[in-house]
Amino acid sequence: MIFSTDRLPPQARDILKKWQLVEEDTSRISDAEVIMAWKLSPELVRSAPRLKAIQTFTAGVDHLPFEAIPKGVKVFSNAGAYSIPVAEHAWALLLYLAKGVNIMDREKMTEYPKLVGGKTLLVLGAGGIGNEVARIGKCFGMKTQGISRHPRPSPAFDEVFDLGSLESLLPNADFVVISLPLNKDSKKILDKRRLSMLKSDCVVVNVGRGDVVDQEALYELLTSRKKFRYGTDVWWREPEGEGAHLPFMKLENFAGTPHVAGGAIKEIAEMAMIAASHNVKRFLETGNAYNEVNFADYV
Amino acid sequence: MIFSTDRLPPQARDILKKWQLVEEDTSRISDAEVIMAWKLSPELVRSAPRLKAIQTFTAGVDHLPFEAIPKGVKVFSNAGAYSIPVAEHAWALLLYLAKGVNIMDREKMTEYPKLVGGKTLLVLGAGGIGNEVARIGKCFGMKTQGISRHPRPSPAFDEVFDLGSLESLLPNADFVVISLPLNKDSKKILDKRRLSMLKSDCVVVNVGRGDVVDQEALYELLTSRKKFRYGTDVWWREPEGEGAHLPFMKLENFAGTPHVAGGAIKEIAEMAMIAASHNVKRFLETGNAYNEVNFADYV
Repeated sequence: MIFSTDRLPPQARDILKKWQLVEEDTSRISDAEVIMAWKLSPELVRSAPRLKAIQTFTAGVDHLPFEAIPKGVKVFSNAGAYSIPVAEHAWALLLYLAKGVNIMDREKMTEYPKLVGGKTLLVLGAGGIGNEVARIGKCFGMKTQGISRHPRPSPAFDEVFDLGSLESLLPNADFVVISLPLNKDSKKILDKRRLSMLKSDCVVVNVGRGDVVDQEALYELLTSRKKFRYGTDVWWREPEGEGAHLPFMKLENFAGTPHVAGGAIKEIAEMAMIAASHNVKRFLETGNAYNEVNFADYV
Repeated sequence: MIFSTDRLPPQARDILKKWQLVEEDTSRISDAEVIMAWKLSPELVRSAPRLKAIQTFTAGVDHLPFEAIPKGVKVFSNAGAYSIPVAEHAWALLLYLAKGVNIMDREKMTEYPKLVGGKTLLVLGAGGIGNEVARIGKCFGMKTQGISRHPRPSPAFDEVFDLGSLESLLPNADFVVISLPLNKDSKKILDKRRLSMLKSDCVVVNVGRGDVVDQEALYELLTSRKKFRYGTDVWWREPEGEGAHLPFMKLENFAGTPHVAGGAIKEIAEMAMIAASHNVKRFLETGNAYNEVNFADYV
């Protein structure tokens, strides 16, 4: 039996029609062999003794209760399902900051806007989202560099490097997009020292996870370097914007959205649930599926 | 002799090194055979009896004193020189409005953002800027339609139509970008009746000229349809933002920049002066050049 914490759209139900599907009704969780979920409590996992796999609707899995998940249970993320909407959102933040949209001061605008064409775009995290961001960067005539734990050539990138090259690439980047998941390698990967290596008018966009960047060091940089810019859809404390954040939204060289790049609107959420359903079908038919999570990255 | 109203960058001077060049010093205008200018007064034109050609640094020429220009004098615009920066700016406005950047209200954001991929982009004005805007639209996975006075097939557009097709295309457009010059055909081409034909959540971006759109009708539409969006770099009265405008900047579904897409920063202004210099060289060597202006469109 497949249990989904939320109601699936008709197209997703159709994909899974060969199997029994229970939606929302947690009283029936004990029979679940697969759980599909946006969010998952340790209690729900512990109430499913027959569990074989967890498929998230989210791309990131850092919120999962890994301590409650038995070793034999496979976990699949929904990485890739959000590549298009999240890459579009990253480009919205990047261009907003590059051009200074809504700065109605012509004097200031003689120095503030940045051309994108011909410049260097460094993408941290060369997965589905990172590849889509870089592909569009090439359309805009940029030089694209990627950083990945497992570097593989890709037509979207002129070059892909491993994490060890980060510090040599930061000083040359005109634009940086972060599409890294949060794990032990990526936490505060942009700390105070590395942030200070960036060009003074660099534009950094984060659609990965807030904690990849050091909050205090970033705030200090934004208030001292007026042409340095940071745009983000992800926050240090989620739900986003709620307390515990420095007053970023008051800064002209900052742009923020409340974690909506990948699914606030129904159209995207349904796309994600359909992608997750395809992956669950793949797992049930073959015993394998895409985006299997390596527990060691999180536990 | 070539007279330039402004100092040219070294690369532009080098292009014109075969000819005598006078910059800024209007006391020597009487010998000018070519005038290169950002802005041009009727007096300056009348003070140059040997004048053969005017080359603007601007892409638009609607600001020229046509009544003072003798019939034999050729006028060349700098159309195309700004295609890349202006297209980038158009995309900044389009994505800003599509995604609702800086709306930090998650509840509102469950309905407001629009996906770009798969949607229909209608470009009014299929010249240099319009082609570049559409080319990027195709990268984002959009269906692209162009409208032009002289429709020609182009790889950036799925289809190009003449002005007569405008009213049949408006109701199907998810996004509209205006890159029309201002002339007799384009003035208020988006009047109240045509604006009302657009989808209620259509995103319209104007990087052409303000007067292409009816100001009062637009303001009424933006205040009554909260998901309809308008972004502009061009205004009804320039210099931009100065009086005589309705309070657009207070609207959440509006984005405005002070006519900076094509040249507020030095990097772009110099690119434009270099492009203009190439065209003046072409004229002086062959008697012909690109972008000759048809007086009948303006007088």
